Amino acid sequence: MMKEEKEGLVNVAGDEGGVCAPQGFAASGVIAGIKVSGNPDMALIVNQGPEKTAAAVFTTNRVQAAPVTVSKKHIADGKLSAVVLNSGNANACNGQPGIADALEVCQKVADGLGVDVTEIGACSTGLIGDRLPMDIVLAGVPKLIEKLGADAAAGTAAAEAILTTDLVAKQAVAHGDGFTVGAMGKGVGMISPSMATMLGVITTDASVSAEMAHEAIAKASEVTFNRLDIDGSTSTNDTVIILANGASGVKPSQEELDQAVLSVCDSIARQMQSDAEGVTKRVSVTVRGTGGAEDALVAARIIGRDNLFKCAMFGSDPNWGRVLAAVGTAPVDMDPEHITVSFNGHVVCRDTGGTPDAREVDLSGKDIAVEVDLGTGNPEEATIRTTDLSHDYVHINSAYSS
Amino acid sequence: MMKEEKEGLVNVAGDEGGVCAPQGFAASGVIAGIKVSGNPDMALIVNQGPEKTAAAVFTTNRVQAAPVTVSKKHIADGKLSAVVLNSGNANACNGQPGIADALEVCQKVADGLGVDVTEIGACSTGLIGDRLPMDIVLAGVPKLIEKLGADAAAGTAAAEAILTTDLVAKQAVAHGDGFTVGAMGKGVGMISPSMATMLGVITTDASVSAEMAHEAIAKASEVTFNRLDIDGSTSTNDTVIILANGASGVKPSQEELDQAVLSVCDSIARQMQSDAEGVTKRVSVTVRGTGGAEDALVAARIIGRDNLFKCAMFGSDPNWGRVLAAVGTAPVDMDPEHITVSFNGHVVCRDTGGTPDAREVDLSGKDIAVEVDLGTGNPEEATIRTTDLSHDYVHINSAYSS
Repeated sequence: MMKEEKEGLVNVAGDEGGVCAPQGFAASGVIAGIKVSGNPDMALIVNQGPEKTAAAVFTTNRVQAAPVTVSKKHIADGKLSAVVLNSGNANACNGQPGIADALEVCQKVADGLGVDVTEIGACSTGLIGDRLPMDIVLAGVPKLIEKLGADAAAGTAAAEAILTTDLVAKQAVAHGDGFTVGAMGKGVGMISPSMATMLGVITTDASVSAEMAHEAIAKASEVTFNRLDIDGSTSTNDTVIILANGASGVKPSQEELDQAVLSVCDSIARQMQSDAEGVTKRVSVTVRGTGGAEDALVAARIIGRDNLFKCAMFGSDPNWGRVLAAVGTAPVDMDPEHITVSFNGHVVCRDTGGTPDAREVDLSGKDIAVEVDLGTGNPEEATIRTTDLSHDYVHINSAYSS
Repeated sequence: MMKEEKEGLVNVAGDEGGVCAPQGFAASGVIAGIKVSGNPDMALIVNQGPEKTAAAVFTTNRVQAAPVTVSKKHIADGKLSAVVLNSGNANACNGQPGIADALEVCQKVADGLGVDVTEIGACSTGLIGDRLPMDIVLAGVPKLIEKLGADAAAGTAAAEAILTTDLVAKQAVAHGDGFTVGAMGKGVGMISPSMATMLGVITTDASVSAEMAHEAIAKASEVTFNRLDIDGSTSTNDTVIILANGASGVKPSQEELDQAVLSVCDSIARQMQSDAEGVTKRVSVTVRGTGGAEDALVAARIIGRDNLFKCAMFGSDPNWGRVLAAVGTAPVDMDPEHITVSFNGHVVCRDTGGTPDAREVDLSGKDIAVEVDLGTGNPEEATIRTTDLSHDYVHINSAYSS
């Protein structure tokens, strides 16, 4: 029932195979046996060249998982041949043995592909604090290599193998002028993901430098993944890697690359919002009328993280007082006597007071757009995407490790 | 059933009548008719002198309710004769008309008591954005005055009339050397209360200056109400007022006053934690081993506000990875490789890795003490009190205004 509910929300863009849509990439996903559920739990993305350009953005959490440490080191030279991913175990907080485990997985992949271990990136997602079941994981690697394919089904298999509490695979494709960008992702956020770590792999057959690739992924993440704020938490494992091989022979400008990368990141972020844990509402919060776009982002995040506001959204309750109570705590410029709030375009609060029919606004639909003007007259604005706080969120997150 | 569940948690200290325990105070609580439930909804606390000393701490929210604005003005000279409180309506976000309403209520009380309007403080709690039903509220004032009494039952009637989603009245009494301090409170926090605004009135028959009273209440609030963090939200209406009348003839030192005031504030804060919306667990989070006590407080708040951590507590799940993921985002000194976490005295994580029996720790009891050492060696620590995030929290807060 929840599954059906969710499918109505999700934009499944998998018919082109996500990471396999650009030329020169192969992917696979297999059931290695890490997950007790028996669902797919390992994935591999291989860049078949000719170029092996790579860049990434990683979690800002000070506690970083072993695969993050390893991937940062391996990507430092701007080159990767492949990324190996597993779900069902985060390989986080396992100290030096955890790092040795991650390296051993990379080595096994490198041996299988005939490349150096430093050309392999690694991503993990799942429970923190348990060692990887190495016999299972290492036995999964030859299966991954054997199953590699370059068609849409192969891309989709990889996208499915990285899911944890996600209900649907998330893929996106953007077509530039002579080049293609593909993507897969899982989880619900970057700066502020839910328990489900955010992992993303973006592929392109454009010919670009590692610096260009990094600039594109950093800029796109800032306005997509980093503005998806489901519960204010930040994973130890968040990673988004971009691989570029130049197979199209096209050298796009930074702007062209940025646009295509932004497009797939935006799609993946929307799909994450729709599939967030326990979500019944997609909520966007836009703030303007403060000190500028930075202030607006701070204020929008404070509203979007407020549990009382999120519960009201779950209840389809146009309780604008919760918006004011939340935004009043934001350390930003505002005119506290002249705040305006609207829900889905209906002004429910003007000059910090309710409008006559404010309580009648119908919020029963799945999308709720909240707009807040803090009254300074500054038109610069920022938007974050969030969700409601539902019974299912509590249910899913109250018995994860046990 | 929930009610029974909660009573096991709550320390009801009402047998001495809270605010009526010190000499020279009268109180009352009545059903004015603001609440559709028909529960008591107005209270009055009168200081019968000889001294009329008063001090207060108010919400830090930039959006402040009308009674906060009015009370700040009336208490500016360090004197109040009475405080009138209502539940069922916050009188917040109603602009100048809301302030005029609050003043009119104060005037009616002042007329009834034969004092100046500037000697009356006002507190409101309930839904934001609806005007006070003035005919009902004004008609309630003579009833309050008629019912004034100085016994324990009168104090309890007042404490019951200020509740919103609270399940039980909250009172406390402390006996100093020749003087007494009484208190009543409602809600769940000060800097970070839940939807239920925190209101508190403290009375004492000690003879103290307004400056001493303010210092005592400010210091006590800082380590009690301000460290009770249920959901990170901050009300527009939070107010704690202390009234002192010198009726005991005793002039305590600042330290003696501080100790008695801290004692009642600590008791009220504990009672609030136990009665927090939807609570099934009382959770304390203590952090040490960072840059100092300030850093420790910042880190403890970040853990205590983390929804994933709070859901794990609801599920009695010793998922220490959630603690590490949360604290890793704290902008404080830490040694990310040497973090220690314990649940109820059992070390579940040492050097940022799980201990062998970490998943076996039994957290099925109602109290969970979480201790985190961030590894710098600095012994300074801070503790916040929070709760779990339960189905009932979502239920209570998803349909409040409708």
